[in-house]
Amino acid sequence: MPGQAAFIAVDWGTTNSRFWLCDGAGAPLDARHGQGVAPLRGTGRFGEVFDEVTAGWPESVPAVLCGTIGANIGWRQVGYRPCPAALTDGASNALSFVHGARIVTILAGVTARNLIDEPDLMRGEETQLAGVVAAGEGDGLYVLPGTHNKWVLVEGGAITRFHTSMSGELYGAIAGHTILLVPGAGEPGAGTMFDHGVRNALRHGAAGFATLLFSVRTRQVLGEMAESDAASYLSGLVIGADVAGGQAMLAEAGSATLVGGAALAASYARAIELAGGTSRSIAGDAAVLTGLALAWRQLSA
Amino acid sequence: MPGQAAFIAVDWGTTNSRFWLCDGAGAPLDARHGQGVAPLRGTGRFGEVFDEVTAGWPESVPAVLCGTIGANIGWRQVGYRPCPAALTDGASNALSFVHGARIVTILAGVTARNLIDEPDLMRGEETQLAGVVAAGEGDGLYVLPGTHNKWVLVEGGAITRFHTSMSGELYGAIAGHTILLVPGAGEPGAGTMFDHGVRNALRHGAAGFATLLFSVRTRQVLGEMAESDAASYLSGLVIGADVAGGQAMLAEAGSATLVGGAALAASYARAIELAGGTSRSIAGDAAVLTGLALAWRQLSA
Repeated sequence: MPGQAAFIAVDWGTTNSRFWLCDGAGAPLDARHGQGVAPLRGTGRFGEVFDEVTAGWPESVPAVLCGTIGANIGWRQVGYRPCPAALTDGASNALSFVHGARIVTILAGVTARNLIDEPDLMRGEETQLAGVVAAGEGDGLYVLPGTHNKWVLVEGGAITRFHTSMSGELYGAIAGHTILLVPGAGEPGAGTMFDHGVRNALRHGAAGFATLLFSVRTRQVLGEMAESDAASYLSGLVIGADVAGGQAMLAEAGSATLVGGAALAASYARAIELAGGTSRSIAGDAAVLTGLALAWRQLSA
Repeated sequence: MPGQAAFIAVDWGTTNSRFWLCDGAGAPLDARHGQGVAPLRGTGRFGEVFDEVTAGWPESVPAVLCGTIGANIGWRQVGYRPCPAALTDGASNALSFVHGARIVTILAGVTARNLIDEPDLMRGEETQLAGVVAAGEGDGLYVLPGTHNKWVLVEGGAITRFHTSMSGELYGAIAGHTILLVPGAGEPGAGTMFDHGVRNALRHGAAGFATLLFSVRTRQVLGEMAESDAASYLSGLVIGADVAGGQAMLAEAGSATLVGGAALAASYARAIELAGGTSRSIAGDAAVLTGLALAWRQLSA
């Protein structure tokens, strides 16, 4: 019944959360933002924060959640689906529980052995990709830049292989908690020093990441790089190292589809270009809501 | 005149400082510890802290300092000597200035283009190596693990080439400011997971450092590694990536001499062994004081 609230959809990631009140067709009636899982880790406040963000929304409407909220640092620990994981099967292995007057369902993540033969995990990206594919995209290599950047191969409508590069979180830890950037160094951007960082990472990966990093400092000390360029160079090193790791997948797939925010997607597109690859960008903002609505329909079928 | 204070020697690094009151022969009469440069960065408090740590020591005795204290984030910015930099020439390019009733001299650092063709810098390690060589060690490859680990080739009594791996600081930023370790995860140590980290870094360097890192998390989430092993695994990844970058120098030199604290030197020795190289460790604790005394004699000659 359009116009009447049918469910709440939540994309609750490591650093942010987005909440939608949806009608029966999955169309949003209201949208809100909240904290990510990381600042709430270990506080036991997830239910409380859920209630704060959804204040005023109907109390008995069920909720469907995806993302880090289902990880061991989240609200409830929910399992993982192994690869190949069909994108139309987002509701399997989900966990439901009662919270106040509602049933809350957290979707399962996806797991695989990755390119370094270690276990890898995703939570939320599988829901976003389900939405992307439901909106008409096909098989191929998807890159989802963010806190924990994912390189994902979709074949036959299923996630078959993927690996995670912790690039966003690594950049934040280095930028905020080492001597590499001066206070107020600003945000990274495109330009000569971003490109130089990418090229250094692609060319000199064997030198070790911590060796690449130290040049961010030495160039500033010797006046070979403006302090205001250091964030861009550091970003180039981090993203360049990430793209270096994805080159085998890129060569195999021919091209990558970037799903995510425009600025970060542009940085990845440039780094992929410098690595000799090609990419195109699509907006992924609405995709996760589409994916949550798909899972909701599967759950309530 | 033994027994009478002749100079103050200071090794003032990024994270720690050591102060000695020395007689004319360079023998320590008293020793104290203080803060490193990093916590004092931008505060303008270096002179004040110097006076606090040296309180009670003779007020007119001159001081000779080495380390980060001469960097752009230190007390005064002092230049660098280019490679090849003779280890017996530690006083050249030093900067002297008046502080209260004393003359303070900060020794110059050393600079070179490194293995990724970027400018590289050291401050303090050149003084420590001068002391090491004065104590009887010869030419060869030296590795000085620490906040900013140095790989240094000494040939003909001079530093001819070196590169820096920011491993210590990188480990700290990752361990303290990402989701990889649980609170109270403990200190890294030797063992299976340290070795596995080293091997992963040596074998899968091309996958990108941020991809290696994410496995610290996934293994804990899936119960494939105890939370108490995560610090050792992370340490193995960081040190393994560092040793991977040093492999060309190791192959050239045949073996490495490790100079530094016992625990960290043991970690590097193990990683070098896993990389197929050999090393031996020497205590470097007294070496920097020997190097400062050498520079002092050169200054007062």
